[in-house]
Amino acid sequence: MKRGRFITLEGGEGAGKSTQSRRLASWLRGRDIDVVETREPGGAPGADAIRALLVTGETGRWTPPAEALLHYAARAEHLARKILPALDAGQWVLCDRFADSTMAYQGYGHELGRAPIEALEEWVVGASGRPDLTLIFDIAPEAGLARAGRRGGAEDRYERMDIAFHARLRDGFLDIARREPERCVVLDAGQPEAEVAARAVEAVAGRLFR
Amino acid sequence: MKRGRFITLEGGEGAGKSTQSRRLASWLRGRDIDVVETREPGGAPGADAIRALLVTGETGRWTPPAEALLHYAARAEHLARKILPALDAGQWVLCDRFADSTMAYQGYGHELGRAPIEALEEWVVGASGRPDLTLIFDIAPEAGLARAGRRGGAEDRYERMDIAFHARLRDGFLDIARREPERCVVLDAGQPEAEVAARAVEAVAGRLFR
Repeated sequence: MKRGRFITLEGGEGAGKSTQSRRLASWLRGRDIDVVETREPGGAPGADAIRALLVTGETGRWTPPAEALLHYAARAEHLARKILPALDAGQWVLCDRFADSTMAYQGYGHELGRAPIEALEEWVVGASGRPDLTLIFDIAPEAGLARAGRRGGAEDRYERMDIAFHARLRDGFLDIARREPERCVVLDAGQPEAEVAARAVEAVAGRLFR
Repeated sequence: MKRGRFITLEGGEGAGKSTQSRRLASWLRGRDIDVVETREPGGAPGADAIRALLVTGETGRWTPPAEALLHYAARAEHLARKILPALDAGQWVLCDRFADSTMAYQGYGHELGRAPIEALEEWVVGASGRPDLTLIFDIAPEAGLARAGRRGGAEDRYERMDIAFHARLRDGFLDIARREPERCVVLDAGQPEAEVAARAVEAVAGRLFR
């Protein structure tokens, strides 16, 4: 069985990742690829229990190190119980947020720095869980937060953090893309939805169908 | 304000740590020391929410890395919100389980190895959260589990793990003590309660009142 491909979708609040994930999954299925769509934090029973602790409640509810550790605990479950088994079974996995979100949100946004998050990534994700392709949906924080606000819902703990936090995490995602150009593609998420979707398909076709 | 002292009580299930913590706290208070008694996992609101995920449910509920990360997330909260503020205020902190439990249970018991747990300890605990003294209550797993079983309660997820797991974690605690003799004192927890309490007081008086 040929191992499936692992594609992650990353970006700040309101960047349109979940919509783009659905469109990309649909395009892949049209090419007879067996696709699993999932998201973080969550994606496995234990990981969903941790998600509830992370995405609701006061913005200052967790110290930044605890927050990073909770995200990685959820990720360890998600990888072991869903992502790696799917890849091993030859399925392609589209994951809405993954390790780069912890680096951007906790490493850059909360200013924990790269080193502790890199150490967690190396231990928990390692080579076997490394994405084959990461699409980074880039949008100005003001525009993204306005979009996320219209979406509504109770899972808004990160949206309620201040604008300087969101500016740092945007810079974080762009820095991650600069450091790993062979894995990451930055897409302008301020463009119309269909245009962004076309760019995402181009990236996937150009990088994973060669 | 002189910083308080940080004493941790470690050992397997049914080693009598919580009883000994109460006795030691009472002895210290008799010497006009302001003592805070606490325990892990837990000891702060977020940490208590994580505790509920760790000490109940199926033994295989978490993969070992997720389990170690959850313990460290709870520890980060506990340190920042309770332990370090108390020490800075000159109080002595007695903590029933701390970093050595994660090393013994996940590093040795679940066989994750020392390296990833040491990295978490260095990052989250660091020099500022390092115990001044650690009392390791040593007991044969069979005897400890029999005692813990009589205690009852729903928080028995670790007690239900197999005897080989408990044998490995006992060896783990003894190995930790051998590696750090300046910090750790091993006490025979199979002795009568008053005898163990006397040995604990001797260790505290000998090491922290010099």
